[in-house]
Amino acid sequence: MERSVTPLASAPYVAGDSPIVSGADYIVSLRGRNLKVFYLGERVAEPVDHPVIRPSVNAVARTYDLALEEPDLATAWSALAGQRVNRFLHVTGSADDVVAQNRMQRRLGQLTGTCFQRCVGMDAINALHSLTFDVDHVHDTPYHERFRRFLVQMQRANFTLGGAMTDPKGDRSKGPSAQSDPDLFTHVVERRADGVVLRGAKMHQTGCLNSHWLLVMPGTRLRENERDYAIVAAIPVDHPGLTYIYGRQSCDTRALEDGGIDLGNPRFSGQEAMILLDDVFVPHEHVFLDGETEFAADLVDRFTAYHRRSYVCKTGVGDVLIGAAALIADYNGVASASHVKDKLIEMAHLNETIYGAGIAASHESHATASGNFQPDDLLANVCKHNVTRFPYELARLAQDLAGGLAATMPSDRDLANPETGPKLRKYLKGREGVSAEDRARAVRLIENLTLGRNAVGYLTESLHGAGSPQAQRIQIARRMKLEEKKKFAKDLAEIRETGPDHG
Amino acid sequence: MERSVTPLASAPYVAGDSPIVSGADYIVSLRGRNLKVFYLGERVAEPVDHPVIRPSVNAVARTYDLALEEPDLATAWSALAGQRVNRFLHVTGSADDVVAQNRMQRRLGQLTGTCFQRCVGMDAINALHSLTFDVDHVHDTPYHERFRRFLVQMQRANFTLGGAMTDPKGDRSKGPSAQSDPDLFTHVVERRADGVVLRGAKMHQTGCLNSHWLLVMPGTRLRENERDYAIVAAIPVDHPGLTYIYGRQSCDTRALEDGGIDLGNPRFSGQEAMILLDDVFVPHEHVFLDGETEFAADLVDRFTAYHRRSYVCKTGVGDVLIGAAALIADYNGVASASHVKDKLIEMAHLNETIYGAGIAASHESHATASGNFQPDDLLANVCKHNVTRFPYELARLAQDLAGGLAATMPSDRDLANPETGPKLRKYLKGREGVSAEDRARAVRLIENLTLGRNAVGYLTESLHGAGSPQAQRIQIARRMKLEEKKKFAKDLAEIRETGPDHG
Amino acid sequence: MERSVTPLASAPYVAGDSPIVSGADYIVSLRGRNLKVFYLGERVAEPVDHPVIRPSVNAVARTYDLALEEPDLATAWSALAGQRVNRFLHVTGSADDVVAQNRMQRRLGQLTGTCFQRCVGMDAINALHSLTFDVDHVHDTPYHERFRRFLVQMQRANFTLGGAMTDPKGDRSKGPSAQSDPDLFTHVVERRADGVVLRGAKMHQTGCLNSHWLLVMPGTRLRENERDYAIVAAIPVDHPGLTYIYGRQSCDTRALEDGGIDLGNPRFSGQEAMILLDDVFVPHEHVFLDGETEFAADLVDRFTAYHRRSYVCKTGVGDVLIGAAALIADYNGVASASHVKDKLIEMAHLNETIYGAGIAASHESHATASGNFQPDDLLANVCKHNVTRFPYELARLAQDLAGGLAATMPSDRDLANPETGPKLRKYLKGREGVSAEDRARAVRLIENLTLGRNAVGYLTESLHGAGSPQAQRIQIARRMKLEEKKKFAKDLAEIRETGPDHG
Amino acid sequence: MERSVTPLASAPYVAGDSPIVSGADYIVSLRGRNLKVFYLGERVAEPVDHPVIRPSVNAVARTYDLALEEPDLATAWSALAGQRVNRFLHVTGSADDVVAQNRMQRRLGQLTGTCFQRCVGMDAINALHSLTFDVDHVHDTPYHERFRRFLVQMQRANFTLGGAMTDPKGDRSKGPSAQSDPDLFTHVVERRADGVVLRGAKMHQTGCLNSHWLLVMPGTRLRENERDYAIVAAIPVDHPGLTYIYGRQSCDTRALEDGGIDLGNPRFSGQEAMILLDDVFVPHEHVFLDGETEFAADLVDRFTAYHRRSYVCKTGVGDVLIGAAALIADYNGVASASHVKDKLIEMAHLNETIYGAGIAASHESHATASGNFQPDDLLANVCKHNVTRFPYELARLAQDLAGGLAATMPSDRDLANPETGPKLRKYLKGREGVSAEDRARAVRLIENLTLGRNAVGYLTESLHGAGSPQAQRIQIARRMKLEEKKKFAKDLAEIRETGPDHG
Repeated sequence: MERSVTPLASAPYVAGDSPIVSGADYIVSLRGRNLKVFYLGERVAEPVDHPVIRPSVNAVARTYDLALEEPDLATAWSALAGQRVNRFLHVTGSADDVVAQNRMQRRLGQLTGTCFQRCVGMDAINALHSLTFDVDHVHDTPYHERFRRFLVQMQRANFTLGGAMTDPKGDRSKGPSAQSDPDLFTHVVERRADGVVLRGAKMHQTGCLNSHWLLVMPGTRLRENERDYAIVAAIPVDHPGLTYIYGRQSCDTRALEDGGIDLGNPRFSGQEAMILLDDVFVPHEHVFLDGETEFAADLVDRFTAYHRRSYVCKTGVGDVLIGAAALIADYNGVASASHVKDKLIEMAHLNETIYGAGIAASHESHATASGNFQPDDLLANVCKHNVTRFPYELARLAQDLAGGLAATMPSDRDLANPETGPKLRKYLKGREGVSAEDRARAVRLIENLTLGRNAVGYLTESLHGAGSPQAQRIQIARRMKLEEKKKFAKDLAEIRETGPDHG
Repeated sequence: MERSVTPLASAPYVAGDSPIVSGADYIVSLRGRNLKVFYLGERVAEPVDHPVIRPSVNAVARTYDLALEEPDLATAWSALAGQRVNRFLHVTGSADDVVAQNRMQRRLGQLTGTCFQRCVGMDAINALHSLTFDVDHVHDTPYHERFRRFLVQMQRANFTLGGAMTDPKGDRSKGPSAQSDPDLFTHVVERRADGVVLRGAKMHQTGCLNSHWLLVMPGTRLRENERDYAIVAAIPVDHPGLTYIYGRQSCDTRALEDGGIDLGNPRFSGQEAMILLDDVFVPHEHVFLDGETEFAADLVDRFTAYHRRSYVCKTGVGDVLIGAAALIADYNGVASASHVKDKLIEMAHLNETIYGAGIAASHESHATASGNFQPDDLLANVCKHNVTRFPYELARLAQDLAGGLAATMPSDRDLANPETGPKLRKYLKGREGVSAEDRARAVRLIENLTLGRNAVGYLTESLHGAGSPQAQRIQIARRMKLEEKKKFAKDLAEIRETGPDHG
Repeated sequence: MERSVTPLASAPYVAGDSPIVSGADYIVSLRGRNLKVFYLGERVAEPVDHPVIRPSVNAVARTYDLALEEPDLATAWSALAGQRVNRFLHVTGSADDVVAQNRMQRRLGQLTGTCFQRCVGMDAINALHSLTFDVDHVHDTPYHERFRRFLVQMQRANFTLGGAMTDPKGDRSKGPSAQSDPDLFTHVVERRADGVVLRGAKMHQTGCLNSHWLLVMPGTRLRENERDYAIVAAIPVDHPGLTYIYGRQSCDTRALEDGGIDLGNPRFSGQEAMILLDDVFVPHEHVFLDGETEFAADLVDRFTAYHRRSYVCKTGVGDVLIGAAALIADYNGVASASHVKDKLIEMAHLNETIYGAGIAASHESHATASGNFQPDDLLANVCKHNVTRFPYELARLAQDLAGGLAATMPSDRDLANPETGPKLRKYLKGREGVSAEDRARAVRLIENLTLGRNAVGYLTESLHGAGSPQAQRIQIARRMKLEEKKKFAKDLAEIRETGPDHG
Repeated sequence: MERSVTPLASAPYVAGDSPIVSGADYIVSLRGRNLKVFYLGERVAEPVDHPVIRPSVNAVARTYDLALEEPDLATAWSALAGQRVNRFLHVTGSADDVVAQNRMQRRLGQLTGTCFQRCVGMDAINALHSLTFDVDHVHDTPYHERFRRFLVQMQRANFTLGGAMTDPKGDRSKGPSAQSDPDLFTHVVERRADGVVLRGAKMHQTGCLNSHWLLVMPGTRLRENERDYAIVAAIPVDHPGLTYIYGRQSCDTRALEDGGIDLGNPRFSGQEAMILLDDVFVPHEHVFLDGETEFAADLVDRFTAYHRRSYVCKTGVGDVLIGAAALIADYNGVASASHVKDKLIEMAHLNETIYGAGIAASHESHATASGNFQPDDLLANVCKHNVTRFPYELARLAQDLAGGLAATMPSDRDLANPETGPKLRKYLKGREGVSAEDRARAVRLIENLTLGRNAVGYLTESLHGAGSPQAQRIQIARRMKLEEKKKFAKDLAEIRETGPDHG
C-alpha cells in the first residue's frame, strides 16, 4: 500500500495533498525525511525501519487506526477545519471534549501498553489556543489567527504534532539569563525581517521523531530581561537545523535480538530523544509568541493543567499491568488465593484513583476567553501527583504476583534451543494446561513494564513527564486556597483574633 | 419565632401545613415529639434542648439555611413536586444533579466541620426511585407510585428524611436466617390486611433523631428463604414503637460543661444512635419492597454507589482541618517553614484525591430506567475507599502541625481562673500578636477533629459509614473487569494459549 | 498497709528513711504533699485521690510492682548505690542494660496500655551521667560528683524522678534570647551565694505530679549569650514555687462518671501537665549545669538518643491494641476471615518494625567517657520516627476491625438501665457465647486507645514526645553520612570528577 | 599471578591443596571447570570470561578481598577448623557472630552495589548445623558429623558454597506429591548402596555458577508420604549432571557493548540461574538429610530466619543509591533545596529501618542445641518484609532526584561521537564545574539500580529472595503471639468472659 507524501521540510502541507488516514499511511509519511538521528553513537539511516525505534512509530500509528475503528472516541468535529479531525488535533469545545481525551488516552494505553506520544501536541495546541488569544488581547499581536491557520493545516493533513518544552536547564538553581551558557535554555539568537533564528536544545522529547511538526515553547516563568527566551514557534521535524539524539532506555537493544518473547511487548514502545536546535530559522507565520515574557508562566500553567491530567493514559497501561499480573497468578495456579485477589484489588483501586482525579479535572473544565476549555488546574495536578506515586506501587505488586521468575527467566533462545528447550518446558510449566512459553510471555510483559523498556514510560516518565513531583506540589500550594480554609476553621472554632494579644 | 407543627405520628404531612423553611423552623418542627431517647442510661426529655444532642440538630439546621443562602447549590427544581425543593430531597435528573450534591456536601462540611446527617436520606430516595421502578417492572407491584407519592409529601413539607440500613448482624459469619436470634436483622413478624409489623434494630443511625421520617431498608444480599427480611418501609421518627439509644462519642460530655473553648467546635456535631423497632406497624402505603429478595443486593449496590461518593463531604471537613493546621502553624510562627508548607500541601493533595474520585463518580453517572441518575459504581467505591485511609493521614499531619499542645492543653476554665489564667496567657502565647485563647481554640478544633467529638465522624465514620473497607474492596473486585484487563495483556504479550500445554 | 513518708520539700530523702518498695508504698509516698495542682479551673485537694488523676498514679505504681514481680526485668545492680535499684533509676553499665530498659518498657506498655511516665527520668539520668562528666573535664566543674550524690539518694529512697525539658517556646521561629518575653524559656533570674533562682515554665510534662523530684534541663541548642538558659537542676516536686496545670485529655471526665465499661481501660492512664516555675531557688548541690551553653545541644542529643528509642514502650501498647482488635474480631465471628487475619499481621509487622529499630539502637550502644552506655543515635531517631507514623496506622486498622460500634456504642449505663439493658443485650451480642458487655469492653478499649484517653499517649505523644517528627529528620540528616554514601556511588560509577568541566 | 586448582568434580578438596586466599585466587579457581552453562540459547565456553557473567564473579571475588582488607569484619575464628575462616563459611558461636554477618553484608553492599551471592551458603550452613544435630538426636542418624566434616573441608579450601532451595513448584496450589510431574520438586529417584540419585531443578539460584559446592535442600513443608523430597545433599558445582541456564536480567547485554558509562556499575552485578539436576549421584558422605520429612519445615524456618535478616545487605546497596541520588542532586545544583534534602532523609530513614530490624534479629539470637546461634525469627521476618517494600520507595525517590535524564540519557557512544559529543557536553552540563560525563555516570548508576541490571537484585530479589512477601506474613502470623496479646487486652478492659452469654 503505497502513497506519496510531499517532503515536509521543503513543502509543508499544501492544500490538495491527500491527508494521512490510517496507521499505515502515517508510517509511509515518516519515511525518507532524512532526519539527523543518532543512536548509540551512530547516525540512523531510516528511523522508521530501525528495530529499536519502530515500536515507538507503531504506537503512534495505533492512534490513527483507533480513529478509524472508533471514530466517536478518537475523532471530533472541528469547526475550525469544517471536518472531523483526529482528536489529538482537536481544540476542545466543551468539558465533554476534554473528558473524551481522557477516555481515548486510557484506551490507547490499554491497546499499546506504552506511551503513544501524541498528548504533548494535543495539550500544547489547547494551551496555545487560549494563550495566543489572550496575548493578542493585551498586545494587539497576530498570534491567535496565525496559530489557527497553522492548526487547520495540521488538521487537514492529519499530521502528528509534537510539543517541545523542557530545556537542558544547566544549574537548576539559576534561571535562563543567569546560566553560564545562554543556550541552556532555547532562545532567539537573531531576528530577521522575515522571522527569527532559534538556538538551544530540548530534553526528554517524547515522540519527536515520530511527529511532522514540533511546537517549541518556553518551560519556565521568565523575567522581563529574558525576552529572547519567550518564544513559541512551529518547526517541521525534518528541518535541517534539527539533530535528534535518541535516548537509551532500559533493555532497548533487546529489539535488536532475534526472537520476541524476551521483548515482553514486541510491538510497542515509547520514544524519548534530545533535540538540538542549531540556529533554526522560523518564519513569522510560525511564531506564536515572541518576547511577551509575562505570558510564559501562563503558558506553562495552561499546558501543564492539560498535560498533567493527560497522564490518565497511565491507567490504560496500568490496566495492562493488572491484567498481566492476574494472568501470571492464574498460570501459577494461585488466582483464587485471598492475598492474590487482594493485591489485584489494591492495584485496581490505585489505578482508578488516578483515573478519578484525571477525569474529574476534565469534567470540571471551564471555558476560556478564546472559547476552548481548560481543565481544573488543582485536580489536574492532583491527578499527576498520584501518577508519580501509584504506578511504582502497582509495579511492586505486579512483581510480587509475578514471582521471582520476572528476574530470573531464561531467554527465549534457551526455550528454542533443542538441548535446553525441552527441559525448560518441563520445569517452567505452571498449572495444568499452561505452557512455559505463555508463562514466559506473561512474565516478560511484567518485566517490560516494571524494569524494562516500557518501565521508562510507566515509571520514570510518570514521575517526571509534565513536571516532576515538586512542580505539582508548588501548583497545589498555589491552588489550595489556604486562606479560605483558615477562615472555615476560625468560624467554627469562634476565633475572632480580637483579644488583647492580637496586634 | 414560633410556628406550629402538626405532630407527625398522628398526622404525617397534610397538604396545607406550612412547610419548613429555615433552620429555625426546622428546630421548632423537632420539638414536642415525645421521642423515646436514652442517653447515659436516662431518658432524654427534649432532645432538641439537650446540650449533647443540640449540636447535631444545629448541623441539620445548617442544611436548611444553606438552601436559603445559596439556593442554586442547595435546592433543585423537582418535576415531581412542581416546585424547587431542598436538594437533599431531590431525585436527580441529570449527571449535573449528582455532581451538585457533591458540591453541596463539601460546602456543608466546610460550614459545619462535621457530619450534617442528611446524605443517607438523599441517597436512599435516589436508590429507591430506580429500584422500585425495576421491581414493579418484574413483579407488577405498586411500589414506585407509592414511593413517588410519599416523596412528594416529604418534598412539600421539606422534611428531613433518614435512612436505616445497618442491622446488628450478630455473628458476622452468618446471614439473617442463620442467626440464633431472628431479630438480629430487621424483619416482618406479622402481615396484616392493611400493612406489616416490623421487629429488629438498626445500628449506627446517623441523624435519626433529627429526622422526621425514616426509610428502613435491608443491608445485605438475601436468600430466597429470607423474604421477611426483604422489606423497605417509611416510618415516622416519632412512631411509639421506636426507641433510640444515643451512642456515646469521644468527649461527648464536654458539651455538658460550662465554657466553650474546650469543645473545639461548639456549635456542630454529628449524631449516631441505635434504633430499636419494637413491633412497628407500617401501612401498605409506606411499604416499598416486601419479599422480593432478589432485589436486596441491587438496593444495597445502588444505595452504596450513591452513598460512597457522598463521602466527599469529608473533604469539606478536611478543608476545616487543613485550615486549622495552617492556623496553628501561623500562630506558632512557623508558617513559612518548608516542612510545614509541605505537610499542608500533602494534606490538600490527599483531600483533593478523595474529591476527585467522588465527583468523577458523579460526573460519570448514567440514567436509570426510572429516569434518575446513578453514579459510577467503581469510582464511588474508589472514592469511599480513599476516605477510609486519607483522613487518618490528614489527622496525623494536623496533629503534627498542632504540636504537643493538642494533647496537653489546660482547660478553658484554667484560662478563666484568675489565679492561673494570667500565667497561662503569658506562657501560651504564640508568635507576636497571637493570644493564648485563640491558640487554644485552634488546638481544640484540631483535637475535636482528630481525637474528640468530630473525630467520630471524620475518622471512624469515614472508615465504616456506607460500608467498611472490605465492602468496597469486594465491590471494586466485582467492577474491575479483570478478564478484559487480562485480554489487553495477552494481546500485547502475544499470548495465544494455543501451545501444546494448553488444554 | 500504712507507712510514713517524710515530706519531701521540707526534707528530701535522708539516710535512714525506709525506701519505697511496692506500688502501694509509692502511692502512700505521694500523699499529703500539698502540691499546687489545677484541673478544670480548680485546685485539686489531693491528686492521688482525684478520679481523673489516679489512673496515672496507678500506672507509675505498676512500675514498682513489676520490680517486685520480675526483678531481673525491672531492677539492676547499681555499683553507685551498692544495691539493686529500680531499673528506672539505674545508670546503664553495658549495652545489655540499655536493651533491658526496652524489654521492661514493652512489658509495662502491655501491662498498663498507657504511658507509665518514668522513662523521661531514666533517660535524663543516663544523659546527665555522661554529660556532667564531660563538662567537668572541660571546665573543671563539680557537676558529675554532685550528680552522682543526688542519684544515689534517689536510688536508695527508690524515688520517681521526672525530667522537664520542653519550654513554652513562644514564637518558634526565634530562640530563647530573641523572644519578646525572656521567660518563654526557663532560665536563671538570680544567682545567689548558695544557689540559683529559676523562672519559666515547662510544657507537656509527663508524669510530673507523680514524681518525687524533677530534673529541669534546657531543650534546645543555645548561643553563647544565652548562658542563663544553660541550667540543669533537680527540684523536689513539692517545691512551693511550682504550680501544675493538669492538661485536658480526650474523654478525661469519663473517669468522673459512675460505671466502668465506658472507660475502656479503667485503671491506667498517662499524665501531662504544664509546670510553672515561679522563682524557684535551687541550692548548688542540685545544680548540674550552669552556663556552659556549648553543652546544651549535646545534652539534648544524648537525652533524645535515649528517649527516642524508649518509645518502644508504644509497642507494648501496640500489643494491647492488636490484642483488642483480635478479640473484637473473634467476638464478631470473623476471626478467620482472611482480610481480618491480614490486618492483624500488618499491625504486628508495623509494631515489630518499631521494636526492631528501638532495640537495635540499644544493642548498638557504645560506652561513654563516664562509663555508662549511650544508644546509637541514628537508629534511636529512626525508631522514634517510625513511632510518629505506625501507631496511627495501627489505630486505623484497629478501628477497621472494631466496626462502627467503636464510635456508636451506647453507654454502660444504658446497658445497666432495666428498660434498655435487656434490649441492648439482645441486639449487641456477637457470635454465640459472647456477651454484649464483653463486646462493649473490647470496643471501649479500642476507643480508649484510638480516640479516647490513652490515644493521647498512643498517638499524639507518639508524634511529639521526645521531639516532633521534624526533629528526628534533622538528626537523621546529621547522622546519615551522606558524603560517605556519595563516595560509594562515585567508586562504583567510576566518577573521578577530573574531567575538563570539573573545577 | 597463576596458581593451580585441582578440578573439583574429579577431586573435591584434599588436604594439602593450597587454599583460596584473594579474589584473584578465587577467579582462577573458577576457570576450566567445563560447566554446562547456557545463556541466550548458547553454551558459554568459559563463564569467568563472559562479559555478562564476569561482573557477578567480581562481586564474589570482592568478598575474598574484603577478608584480606578487613579480617575482623569478614573472617572469624573457627573452632571447627582450628583457624580463621572466611565469615561466609563460619558457624556462628555467639549473637555477636550473627550481628557481624550483618555488618559484613552491609559493607559488601556498599562496595559492590549488588548481590555478592554468598549469603545463601552462609545461612544454609548455619541452619544445617543445628538441624542435623537435632535430626540425629531423634533418629540416631550420622548427619551432624558428616556435615561438620564437609564444612571443615570447605573452610580449609576457602571455597564458595551455594545453597539451592527453590523448586520449580508447577501448580502453586499443590504440594510436591500432587504435581502432575514428580520432578517439579527435586527428589531422590534412586537409592544405591553408596548414595542417592537426585532429579529435578532449582530456580532463581543466586551465585550458583560462582560457587564451588552447592547445598541442595527442600524448600517447603513436606508430608509423610513425601520422603523422597526430604533430601539435603552437597554437590560439586562442576558435577556433570548439572546444567545451568543463566537468567536474563534487565539490560544484561549492555555488558556486551563497548564503552562503560552506560553500564552504570561496570564492575559488579548479581547472578541468577536455573539449575537442572539430571540424575545426579551423591555419595552418602554428602547427604545430610534423607527422608526425615518432619524436619523439612524446621529447616526452612531456620534457614529463612537466617536468610531474611541477611537482606540487610540491601541497606548497603541502599547506601549506594542514596549516595547516587545525593550526587546527582549536587551535580544539578539543587543539593540545598529543602525538598531534595527531605527526600534524602526519607531514603535514609527507610534504609535504616530495614537495618534496625535486621540487626535486632541478629542481636536477639539464641543458642541452639548444637551450639550455634539462631536469629530471632519474628524480627528476621519483619526485616525481610520491609525489604519487600522500602527499596521500591527508595528507587522511586532516587528516580525523582535523578530527573527525567535517568530515562532519556543518550548513550556513552553519543558522548564519544565527535559529531554529537561536543554538543552533548555543552547541553548536559550540570552546575558549574560538573562534566556531562560525570552527570551521565551518576544517572546511569541510578538507572542500573532502579531499572537496569542491579534493579533485579535491589528490587525483584528484595521482593522474592528468601521467600515472597506472603511467606513472611505467614511466619509473622505464627510468631505474633496473638493469644498473649488478647490476654493483655482482656486484663486491661476487665473482660472476664463469665457473663450469662459466655459458653
